[in-house]
Amino acid sequence: MKDDTEEKGGLTRRGFLKSTGGAAAVAGMTVGGLAVGTGEAAAATGPMPKKWNETYDVVVIGSGFAGLAAAIEAKNAGASAVVIEKMAVHGGNSIINGGDFCAPGTKLQKEAGVQDSPDLMYNDMMKAGLYLNHPELARTVADQAKDALEWCENYIGAKFTRLNFHGGHSVKRANQTANASGSEVVNKMLGKARALGIEVQTRTKMVRFIANKDGRIVGIEVRTGYKFPDEKSGKTAYIKARKAVILTSGGFSEDLKLRQIEDPRLTDKFGTTNQPGATGEALLAACMAGAMDVQMDWIQLGPWTSPDEKGFGHVPLFCERLVGYGPMIDPVKGKRFFKETGNRKERADAIILLGHPVIIMGDSYSVPKQVFPRALEKGLESGAVKKFDTLEALAKNYNIPLSALQQEIARWNSFVEKKKDDDFDCMIFKDARPTAAPPFYAARLWPKVHHTMGGLVIDKNAQVFGLDFKPLKGLYAAGEVTGGVHGAVRLGGVAMADCLVFGRIAGKNAAKEKSWG
Amino acid sequence: MKDDTEEKGGLTRRGFLKSTGGAAAVAGMTVGGLAVGTGEAAAATGPMPKKWNETYDVVVIGSGFAGLAAAIEAKNAGASAVVIEKMAVHGGNSIINGGDFCAPGTKLQKEAGVQDSPDLMYNDMMKAGLYLNHPELARTVADQAKDALEWCENYIGAKFTRLNFHGGHSVKRANQTANASGSEVVNKMLGKARALGIEVQTRTKMVRFIANKDGRIVGIEVRTGYKFPDEKSGKTAYIKARKAVILTSGGFSEDLKLRQIEDPRLTDKFGTTNQPGATGEALLAACMAGAMDVQMDWIQLGPWTSPDEKGFGHVPLFCERLVGYGPMIDPVKGKRFFKETGNRKERADAIILLGHPVIIMGDSYSVPKQVFPRALEKGLESGAVKKFDTLEALAKNYNIPLSALQQEIARWNSFVEKKKDDDFDCMIFKDARPTAAPPFYAARLWPKVHHTMGGLVIDKNAQVFGLDFKPLKGLYAAGEVTGGVHGAVRLGGVAMADCLVFGRIAGKNAAKEKSWG
Repeated sequence: MKDDTEEKGGLTRRGFLKSTGGAAAVAGMTVGGLAVGTGEAAAATGPMPKKWNETYDVVVIGSGFAGLAAAIEAKNAGASAVVIEKMAVHGGNSIINGGDFCAPGTKLQKEAGVQDSPDLMYNDMMKAGLYLNHPELARTVADQAKDALEWCENYIGAKFTRLNFHGGHSVKRANQTANASGSEVVNKMLGKARALGIEVQTRTKMVRFIANKDGRIVGIEVRTGYKFPDEKSGKTAYIKARKAVILTSGGFSEDLKLRQIEDPRLTDKFGTTNQPGATGEALLAACMAGAMDVQMDWIQLGPWTSPDEKGFGHVPLFCERLVGYGPMIDPVKGKRFFKETGNRKERADAIILLGHPVIIMGDSYSVPKQVFPRALEKGLESGAVKKFDTLEALAKNYNIPLSALQQEIARWNSFVEKKKDDDFDCMIFKDARPTAAPPFYAARLWPKVHHTMGGLVIDKNAQVFGLDFKPLKGLYAAGEVTGGVHGAVRLGGVAMADCLVFGRIAGKNAAKEKSWG
Repeated sequence: MKDDTEEKGGLTRRGFLKSTGGAAAVAGMTVGGLAVGTGEAAAATGPMPKKWNETYDVVVIGSGFAGLAAAIEAKNAGASAVVIEKMAVHGGNSIINGGDFCAPGTKLQKEAGVQDSPDLMYNDMMKAGLYLNHPELARTVADQAKDALEWCENYIGAKFTRLNFHGGHSVKRANQTANASGSEVVNKMLGKARALGIEVQTRTKMVRFIANKDGRIVGIEVRTGYKFPDEKSGKTAYIKARKAVILTSGGFSEDLKLRQIEDPRLTDKFGTTNQPGATGEALLAACMAGAMDVQMDWIQLGPWTSPDEKGFGHVPLFCERLVGYGPMIDPVKGKRFFKETGNRKERADAIILLGHPVIIMGDSYSVPKQVFPRALEKGLESGAVKKFDTLEALAKNYNIPLSALQQEIARWNSFVEKKKDDDFDCMIFKDARPTAAPPFYAARLWPKVHHTMGGLVIDKNAQVFGLDFKPLKGLYAAGEVTGGVHGAVRLGGVAMADCLVFGRIAGKNAAKEKSWG
């Protein structure tokens, strides 16, 4: 191939010089008074290899929602594509996600009589995001979420069977997969990708980006046969991307070093809901290649996780189905302390402020009706969710002052009767009933690191921005590795929408790029 | 000189290659699974020049509090030093700052009977910073502020004559300069610097960093004779730093492009309190050289600025001396709406949420007693502060419903009498009296962009951190260009403490570096 021949000299100084974009740096282009050049932006990248081991039009890094959607769309637009994944299994955090896909105007919403619109979803995202969201990115997700959901249903074959609510949304708009897991979509996308001839290479870790002399990203250096987290495992290979590289490597919740730079509170005392590979080295590699990041310090804690189980566990699905139906109680005082339907950040901050785990509870009417049966069953099995014949037994188990609890439950029930919470302005759903019918169910809640809102700056075409405020040629990104879509706070169920919408956009646009060699 | 001879080849490929750190990149050092190297971190820097125009041990970029303190300390530690400043005048934002220097345990506090401690100041900083502060940086400022203040008094000769309060602090701890301006300290530091033989080169703009083959920052490319904001003005020169470069270039409040990436709300509809040179290109140049930034999206709006004057103006000094003494009123309703002694972010957010300017007011007792006479005089002169013979006249001028205002003032006065605000928990100082004695004074408030909390990651030695989590050799930073000291919210009067403490640390440590050539 042409490029291989050109670079036959291998790691000669000439080859390396070309790859560092020296010409542009010397030319001294200026942006905003600062001498930069696309060459410079790409200077902190690896050397051009003497030989590319593999060549594709589009190289996708990461095999979650965004990565698989990107690869499929790129392929369908006529590009050859490959997906690399550093872990032994595909799917990243997406495959362990709860399977809630927020989109306005869906079939399930219509069936449930829910009035919704892209504007309403956009406004909810912006409000929760404290208006730090990049408006055109949030708008793109709100506008295209329904189409992406229907693509998952009609083209990918994923099934969505239930409509859920998440705190911070104005209406129920989370379309839940049939198995209450992102695996429904991930595994069916993987099947589709394979049917299209797209290879998903697991145990293949991106090590650094490679740029040509114009600063365009032209490929990546990887380690194949990599065994996470052994950084010495595997061997070096080079994958050429004739059109573009798409980075969909996810967030950095599991990256203790990086997350503590951004939010020093998040020491190892906080667990995460993430798979262990959710680290930030690919994001930082993009920064080293001249990409700009944004809002990296907004790290979301899930307020619905339990200290009584590992990882995401089963309690989040228990908790999130109960908010708006049952009360959240501070066991020390036996009182409610915050609005159950508040957004994730509000609730997590309120619990951290108390300084100890709290209780979410329901009764024999609300729990079986709201909670996904398998989540309840698994939660009870593991002991993270408990069942009590009486309120007395519940109080005794959590060491809650009984009379205070009884008073507070009576007060909560009076709010449920009139569908108005005078204390914390919690949304109370119209089908909610007083928490009164034994047996009672409860689980303890303590926040875990869940999602990193910040990441690479992209435009609405999913193109990565450089430190010179210009697109970094040949590099797209989508999903949790990007920033700006959610601003300060990502609402529940919007990650899936974000990943599918921007993954598809990245794939389509990458395929449209001109081939460089 | 040795280095000039070595690089006589000039912009040869060899010279350029050396400067790009190719060797380290090829060597493939790994950090956290990502192949990086100090050479890579420095790769996006300018080429090694064929000739250095000037050579110093320590090169300081920026001539505000931090820069001048750094240069003086470096010189006093035996290093030769130069200060470069892109603007026509020295002093940056520091010279237009209000001159309040927060420090615990000072002479003025003792005279006023104020109990304070580094722990209390640290706790105030952390609480306001939403605990996003890098603890060891906040601790360093709280611990060393008093010493830095005394250095300004005893060594620099600056005078501090009054003790002030700023919202968010537990006690009065802002030691105000004799002329209520940072110029008192800046100009006396400039005099000291000159007496020590340190040159301050104005109209000299840093264009990019230069690194040697080991990735160490060894100097900078500048434009001399630069005329802000004409990016074509001036001519290229190279300044060699034998020991280190210290970046004290300030924040980016005036950088519309960068601030809108970080906080998209901050369009050109928001003015700033800053000098026009407060742009982010030097910070971004450090990022291009491999530095890590942090918490860039926390951009502080001053809640005490007025839409009726330009820049910082005189109203902030009027407003901040009155909080805790007089009420802040929403003119549409004639009611208070937020705690006057809340921190900057809380107050600015509350005003933005209302969507229109509000009023701060005082009477003929509180205003002359609290407000610095010149600030009052200048405010009245410009019309941004107004004087009214009656409450009726005040209400009429701002179109405030009179009876609502009268009621609210009576309510506020009842709180002042008992020194407890039942509505918003405002701190009411023990020497406060009811707002009752005409004439009344008032000013309109609307937020302006004031301070950028985020910036380069530094350690407690003021050394800049790279994307590889290691010190970026040869580069120090101090003041507003750094991040982490203040976390989410900088409290009033802590900028001066931050700049003086870390400026001095940077200067001392830079002087201790081994000379590279």
